[in-house]
Amino acid sequence: MAEPKLPTRSEDFSEWYNQLVLRAELADYAPVRGCMIVRPYGWALWENITAALDSRFKATGHVNAAFPMLIPRSFIEKEKSHVAGFSPELAVVTHGGGEKLEEPLVLRPTSETIIGHAYAKWIRSYRDLPILINLWNSVVRWELRTKLFLRTLEFYWQEGHTAHATLAEAEAETRQMLDVYTDFAVNEAAIPVIPGRKSAAERFAGANDTFSIEAMMGDGKALQAGTSHNLGQNFAKAFEIRYLDPAGELQFCWTTSWGLSTRFVGAIIMVHGDDQGLILPPRLAPHQVVLCPIFKNDAEKTAVLEAAHRLRAELAAAGVRVKLDDRDNVSPGFKFNDWEMRGVPLRIELGPKDVAQNAVVLARRDRPGKEGKSSVPQAGLAAAVTARLGEIQQSLLDRALAERRRRTAEPKDYAEFRQAVESGFALVPWCGDAACEAEIKAETKATLRCIPLEQEKGPAGRCVKCGQPAAERAYFAKAY
Amino acid sequence: MAEPKLPTRSEDFSEWYNQLVLRAELADYAPVRGCMIVRPYGWALWENITAALDSRFKATGHVNAAFPMLIPRSFIEKEKSHVAGFSPELAVVTHGGGEKLEEPLVLRPTSETIIGHAYAKWIRSYRDLPILINLWNSVVRWELRTKLFLRTLEFYWQEGHTAHATLAEAEAETRQMLDVYTDFAVNEAAIPVIPGRKSAAERFAGANDTFSIEAMMGDGKALQAGTSHNLGQNFAKAFEIRYLDPAGELQFCWTTSWGLSTRFVGAIIMVHGDDQGLILPPRLAPHQVVLCPIFKNDAEKTAVLEAAHRLRAELAAAGVRVKLDDRDNVSPGFKFNDWEMRGVPLRIELGPKDVAQNAVVLARRDRPGKEGKSSVPQAGLAAAVTARLGEIQQSLLDRALAERRRRTAEPKDYAEFRQAVESGFALVPWCGDAACEAEIKAETKATLRCIPLEQEKGPAGRCVKCGQPAAERAYFAKAY
Repeated sequence: MAEPKLPTRSEDFSEWYNQLVLRAELADYAPVRGCMIVRPYGWALWENITAALDSRFKATGHVNAAFPMLIPRSFIEKEKSHVAGFSPELAVVTHGGGEKLEEPLVLRPTSETIIGHAYAKWIRSYRDLPILINLWNSVVRWELRTKLFLRTLEFYWQEGHTAHATLAEAEAETRQMLDVYTDFAVNEAAIPVIPGRKSAAERFAGANDTFSIEAMMGDGKALQAGTSHNLGQNFAKAFEIRYLDPAGELQFCWTTSWGLSTRFVGAIIMVHGDDQGLILPPRLAPHQVVLCPIFKNDAEKTAVLEAAHRLRAELAAAGVRVKLDDRDNVSPGFKFNDWEMRGVPLRIELGPKDVAQNAVVLARRDRPGKEGKSSVPQAGLAAAVTARLGEIQQSLLDRALAERRRRTAEPKDYAEFRQAVESGFALVPWCGDAACEAEIKAETKATLRCIPLEQEKGPAGRCVKCGQPAAERAYFAKAY
Repeated sequence: MAEPKLPTRSEDFSEWYNQLVLRAELADYAPVRGCMIVRPYGWALWENITAALDSRFKATGHVNAAFPMLIPRSFIEKEKSHVAGFSPELAVVTHGGGEKLEEPLVLRPTSETIIGHAYAKWIRSYRDLPILINLWNSVVRWELRTKLFLRTLEFYWQEGHTAHATLAEAEAETRQMLDVYTDFAVNEAAIPVIPGRKSAAERFAGANDTFSIEAMMGDGKALQAGTSHNLGQNFAKAFEIRYLDPAGELQFCWTTSWGLSTRFVGAIIMVHGDDQGLILPPRLAPHQVVLCPIFKNDAEKTAVLEAAHRLRAELAAAGVRVKLDDRDNVSPGFKFNDWEMRGVPLRIELGPKDVAQNAVVLARRDRPGKEGKSSVPQAGLAAAVTARLGEIQQSLLDRALAERRRRTAEPKDYAEFRQAVESGFALVPWCGDAACEAEIKAETKATLRCIPLEQEKGPAGRCVKCGQPAAERAYFAKAY
């Protein structure tokens, strides 16, 4: 049953990723090019992500709803930047029920337009505002180069859509949701992210301002892990979303949208994984603990399995997501490797000696080999496991943060800059000119990831490209 | 702000339904014909339905996954009954990314075919079985006559898809999921249902056996509220889903599928609603309790709102889904009517006298007027409210069951039968001949809803249509 080893990350990071996604049974290729089947293990991870986000959305006053996937093609054309951004990526339904449709329909690439149509109908007065709606759904964008989770024709996400009476409220909402994403990434996924503003060139099609959280992957490249857009009055004007203010005057609304997708699963894989496979953050892992019984004969088996079932029940009752691997057709060693590859944060080994001593062995996924192993008493196991999971969660975040620091340079000139973006992030003064940004991209393939919200005080220095005075510093990197 | 009254159910049941769905803000029409926007209140109800079902699916060993919405058209053609059933209803994507596709894609009308393709790839040995996967998604069927929730081009549902080593296991799974649906309908939605087998004419396209739960709506018509299919080896043979048995022989799998959709929201509306509007069963209601403060001046307002916020927090802490309606631009009377129309099971009225007496008034939605009102002390309110919600839940079930009994006839001859199906269900002996079933449908518009699993012992009697001896009795009714 032994499969060939995974390529190491340093040998071929991309192939390590592709093979790992398939072997860990997170996802599979669908029969339609570029589409993805999310398998139960991957979907359980996504469900934990959705639960962590959904509770944050509800705590900030949002409610969920559902909008149709089919949108009249004419809708996409109503907002002029939006159509420019999305029309090359549309999938078009031309026939229904055996007949050619009068107007072709598109599969939503995102829902701003149909939301605009509905909000224009629903909103009458300032008393109807704000509207704070989130959708959990999938959208379709006809991408040419695809990769499981990172870029697929159909992908799963949430898209928030809000309407407000004032610009200030829309700005506050946009920033609030960026904060929610940051909090989620850091505290649930153990992924340090840089919240920042996008340059005009990298904005969402139809937004006045786009903010994102940017994360560094295990190969030093960046991944945009969530975005929050201030749409100004662009969609309000295109779709006539208006309200009567307290003085009885008709005003256009201010709208926002924000999204986080199954790309984030790719981020978790690429930030935390090692050459043995996945390492899932305990707070999101489908199985936080795998319990592996070890025995050589029937007498041992009886004693070990009795203890295993008892401990499994104790852990489950304490709220730990625990999996008992009682397969009898594979060896303990096979199970250890298998669950390591699948990234379960903590393994419990339980053999006859452990049973005799009323103990178990805990083995941490983030510290392979003896260093990560320790024997603990069975009494109070749930508390010990919970504490260990907390340590692993923290250690993954610390490690990712240290790695990002190690691979983030502050180059003094363009030569150093070019070198820096070969293997990580470069934080440099930028003059704000789109021409410099475009030249950098053409020459280095590095894009402006974001202008971080946190800026050092005082002058930023001179633009790394043109030497003109810069008002701000920005992160550049190659990106997924 | 007063809107014209709803039509009564006896005046125009269909129009009562249509207006109620819109006014209660459960759903709205989408710009594309036959599509539906599920608004936050409707989606919150659906989320409670999904949570109640999902926990039952997981308790019976199922896991969730996600499959793409785009399916090659050729897949639909692989199983011959399936293509006959579904090809008239397909929506077809012919263009993607600005180019014509080599093979047209269809939007899934249901996922048996793409599931078959994947299971054939994933299943190798008997050790891989059973596979017990459920999907929460939406599907598209190009219906001509549509009605919000009951029949829409795109609708939301869950579809379970399982693969087994033996026919007996597949049969047990099919029946188990029918039991799960029955338990959910009765104990969560307070909807009495009749679990039974469909006739061959009413089977799912591709199934050997279809089971359903059938519910009676407020106008005496039937609604199929959930289905469970034993697919035999039909899809296994069409897609080559095979496994090696312990003896090393290659065998075809046995598969099942089962689904429950947003139609069920329609059932809740039509079973429990009255002329004032919705009545939602407490276990599924988005707001179980609405708290309406009553005051005439600022001094009263301060005292009443202070108590209202305190009681709201107490109820929420006890796990009650409570909404405090603190709008200051509408009267208490307006709020009472509004929340009655929206079907909140229990209202708490809180005025200055109640505050002075450390009491509140509870008003039951299922018993309008004084009969359903009572004053209870604020001390121990959460327990009182929880008990009252339990009583309402039971009362809704009892009432629906009594109504179904009242409108279910056991006609002795075809003349009585024809009369019975004008206003309710008819339980009659049926010979099993599809010709009798078809004639009944043509003559009365009543269809065979199901052959109930529970049959009286002894001979069933003679077929209501042809007079031949019947082995079983079946329910006939007009249906949604």
